[in-house]
Amino acid sequence: MTIHLLDIDHVGIAVEDLEGSVERYRTLLGIEPVHRERVEDQGVDEVLFAVGSSFIQLLGAIGPDSSVGRSLATRGPGLHHVAYRVRDVAAALEDLSAQGAGLVDRVPRQGSRDTLIAFVHPRSMGGVLVELVQPG
Amino acid sequence: MTIHLLDIDHVGIAVEDLEGSVERYRTLLGIEPVHRERVEDQGVDEVLFAVGSSFIQLLGAIGPDSSVGRSLATRGPGLHHVAYRVRDVAAALEDLSAQGAGLVDRVPRQGSRDTLIAFVHPRSMGGVLVELVQPG
Repeated sequence: MTIHLLDIDHVGIAVEDLEGSVERYRTLLGIEPVHRERVEDQGVDEVLFAVGSSFIQLLGAIGPDSSVGRSLATRGPGLHHVAYRVRDVAAALEDLSAQGAGLVDRVPRQGSRDTLIAFVHPRSMGGVLVELVQPG
Repeated sequence: MTIHLLDIDHVGIAVEDLEGSVERYRTLLGIEPVHRERVEDQGVDEVLFAVGSSFIQLLGAIGPDSSVGRSLATRGPGLHHVAYRVRDVAAALEDLSAQGAGLVDRVPRQGSRDTLIAFVHPRSMGGVLVELVQPG
């Protein structure tokens, strides 16, 4: 067993109106955005709020062809994925692959905040899209 | 502003087969269940896994008429809700109510693990069912 989950890194939430949603989270939940980034290869604008040792990640689609855009079109806004923080995402992928898990990413790729990330397919996780995040 | 989010308490995940899902989380993610409880008034069996300072909560429906049973029937298995840990759930509800948020619970009720909990309606949170959890 190589994989070791350090924490919930973030919960990703797909939103229709990113700025309106940021305002709603600020007003209703009293949290402030700590990071914003456009991740071109994922087709998303993300805004992170720190909550304890984790983040809430609001995801706005840059276009309808992005993963988040398709999710909004088919499932509507709401919970999109859960991300676990790991020490070594490459080792975690090897371990998952050895156990027959379906991987979206077979090798780690660059995420936001200088992280290395990889996604595990929802079919292996009971319908939950799972991300692994190795801090930068 | 009364509300103050201490941490992500847990991510709730609706599953079809609770025992099979517990085994999948143990095997694939290398985490062990730390708590099991039947919450009769919510119609669920829950299993908690500790991940850092938060939990992953697998939710199996006791019957089709429960909230989780209806969610499984209409949306299938997957991410069900996100729960934030707060110091005072009654004060948080007052604050949310004053700001016009739609509340599922207007007063706190007993949750698992001797917690006090309340749910906020997804219509106020961009389609996300939000729970507030005050540790026991």
